[in-house]
Amino acid sequence: MYDLIILGAGPAGLSASIYASRYKINHIVIGSVFDAAMSKAHLIENWPGEESIKGSDLLMKFYNHAKKLGVEIIQENVIEIGKKTEDGSEKNNFIIKTENNKIYKSKSIIVAFGTKNRKLNISGEEEFLGRGLSYCAVCDSAFFKNKIVAVVGGSNSAAMAASMLSEHASRVFLIYRKKPLRCEPIMLDRLEKNSKVEIIYNTNVTKVSGNKKVEFIELDREYNGNARLNLDGLFIEVGSVPSTSLIKEIGIEVDESNCIKINQDGSTNVKGVYSAGDITNGSNGLRQIVTAVSEGAVAVTSIYKYLKED
Amino acid sequence: MYDLIILGAGPAGLSASIYASRYKINHIVIGSVFDAAMSKAHLIENWPGEESIKGSDLLMKFYNHAKKLGVEIIQENVIEIGKKTEDGSEKNNFIIKTENNKIYKSKSIIVAFGTKNRKLNISGEEEFLGRGLSYCAVCDSAFFKNKIVAVVGGSNSAAMAASMLSEHASRVFLIYRKKPLRCEPIMLDRLEKNSKVEIIYNTNVTKVSGNKKVEFIELDREYNGNARLNLDGLFIEVGSVPSTSLIKEIGIEVDESNCIKINQDGSTNVKGVYSAGDITNGSNGLRQIVTAVSEGAVAVTSIYKYLKED
Repeated sequence: MYDLIILGAGPAGLSASIYASRYKINHIVIGSVFDAAMSKAHLIENWPGEESIKGSDLLMKFYNHAKKLGVEIIQENVIEIGKKTEDGSEKNNFIIKTENNKIYKSKSIIVAFGTKNRKLNISGEEEFLGRGLSYCAVCDSAFFKNKIVAVVGGSNSAAMAASMLSEHASRVFLIYRKKPLRCEPIMLDRLEKNSKVEIIYNTNVTKVSGNKKVEFIELDREYNGNARLNLDGLFIEVGSVPSTSLIKEIGIEVDESNCIKINQDGSTNVKGVYSAGDITNGSNGLRQIVTAVSEGAVAVTSIYKYLKED
Repeated sequence: MYDLIILGAGPAGLSASIYASRYKINHIVIGSVFDAAMSKAHLIENWPGEESIKGSDLLMKFYNHAKKLGVEIIQENVIEIGKKTEDGSEKNNFIIKTENNKIYKSKSIIVAFGTKNRKLNISGEEEFLGRGLSYCAVCDSAFFKNKIVAVVGGSNSAAMAASMLSEHASRVFLIYRKKPLRCEPIMLDRLEKNSKVEIIYNTNVTKVSGNKKVEFIELDREYNGNARLNLDGLFIEVGSVPSTSLIKEIGIEVDESNCIKINQDGSTNVKGVYSAGDITNGSNGLRQIVTAVSEGAVAVTSIYKYLKED
C-alpha cells in the first residue's frame, strides 16, 4: 500500500514525484514518458533557463531528477482505476491495474495523464510532426519567422494561434471547414484587420506533404484557383482531448471540455484524488510545461497535508 | 510608451518576460535580480531538471534566457507607481518612477516584487544565511539529514516546517515566544506525538552563532538548564512580508496577509494590472519557483489578450 500513486510521467507527474520525494511521501509513478506530449515537442524555448532544448531531452532531465530522488517509475499503461472505502473511514483507497495485470494500491492518487491532441487524420500528419507541423502555436510560433504558415481550426485557440503566428510569420492562412469562425467576434475583427492573415472558409486540408519538411498542403476546394497551397508550417488547432477515459468510473468530475475540475489545492471532488497538468481545468486553461510542474507541486503539497490528517 | 512593464526580476518576472518576448509584447523589466529571494537560496533541488543548483546560478540562467530574447532589464528600484486614465478610455496607463528619477510608461504592468522574509533581527542572522540558517523549510529540509535543527515560530508554517524537518533531521526543536502554538490543533497533536520533535514555549532566540556554519543558538530562557542550544540548522518561519508598499496608491486589493489578490488569469481588481509570484495569493499559497514561473506565464498570456482588445 503506497501513500501516493502518480498516474502519468509527463512534466506534471514528474514534478509531483520530485516534490513527493522531498516530502518523503512513499509513492510510485505509473506511466510512460513516451506518452507525454512534451516528449514530442521538437524544440522548447519557453522553459525558463533553457534557451532551446528538445522536448524529449528536457523530459529526460525531469525523469532523471525524479529517479535520482529514489522513486520507482513503472513504464506501463494503466487500464483501470478502482476506489474502495474502508468501513468507518472517510478516506478512499485506490486500486490501480496496469496493462500487464499488475495491481498497485494507494491512499491517494494524482491523475496527470495529460491530453492528446485532436488529429485531422490526414496523410502526412504523423510524418511531419516536428518538421513543420505542430499542435501548439504558443510553443512553436517563434520558429516561423518570415515563413508562410497555415492554421487549421475555427475556435478561439485557432484564432489566437493565427494572431500569434502573424507576429512572426510573413503570411498566415487560417483554414476552417465551416463559416463563420467559432471564435469571439473581437478576435475575428482583429484577424480581418490583420494584413498578414487570410481566412479560408469552408475548406478542409486533406494532405500535408514535402521533402524533409512541410512544403505544401492540399485542400478539398480550390483557393485562388489552386487546391495546393505552398507553405512552411502547418498548425493544427482543432482541440485536444483530455485522457479521461479511465477516471469517470470512480466519479471524478470533469468540465464541459472534459477536463478534470480541480480546486485551488489540486484536489478533485473525490477524496484522495488530486490532479495536475494538461488534463485539468487549472492555470486558466494555459497548457504549458511551467503550468504543469506548478500544478504537480501544488497537488503534492496538499497531499502531504491530507495524508497527515487522521 | 511600452505595452507592458514587468516590475521585479525574480522567477515570476523573468518567466513573464520570456513569454512576453515570445508573444512579441513590447516590454521592459524593472528590478534587480539581487533583490529576488531566489538569489539567496544556497541550493535549489526542486526545480525540475536541475538536481542541485545554487539559487543565484539558476536565476542567472533565467536572466540570460530573458535577455537573449531581447528584453531590456533595468536594474533599478521602483519608487512610485502611478495610474492615469485617458479621457473616454476604460483602460489605464501606468507611470513608473525609479530611484534615479527616471520615468517609464506602459499600458499594462505585472507586479512581481515577491516577498521579503520577516526577520528575527538577531545577531548572526544575516551572517549565517545559507550556512545553516534558512527561511524556507520546503526548500531546504532535505539538506539536514540526521542533523539537529530548530524552527522558530508558532504558525501553521512553523509547525509544517517542524513536521517536514522531522522526516530528515534526527531532532527538531520548535521554539515559540508564546504558548500555545497558533497552528491548527491537528498539527499540534501530530507534533506532540512526533518523538523527534520537542516544543520549547515562551522562549526567544537571541543569537545564532558558530564558526563557519551554524553551531549553536542562544535563548532568552534556559532550556534543560542551559541557555545555549547546540544544533546544525535554524529555520526562521515567522512569516514573510509581501513587498506591497508601492501598490496601494493605485488601489490594488490585497488579502488579509497583504498578498495581492489575483484572479485565475493573473489579473487584479485594477484594469491593466496583473500580478505573479510570491507577492500574490495564487497557487494555493505555495511559494516556489515552479509556482512563480507558472503565474508569470499565465499573467502574460492574459495581457496578450488584454492588449489586443480595443
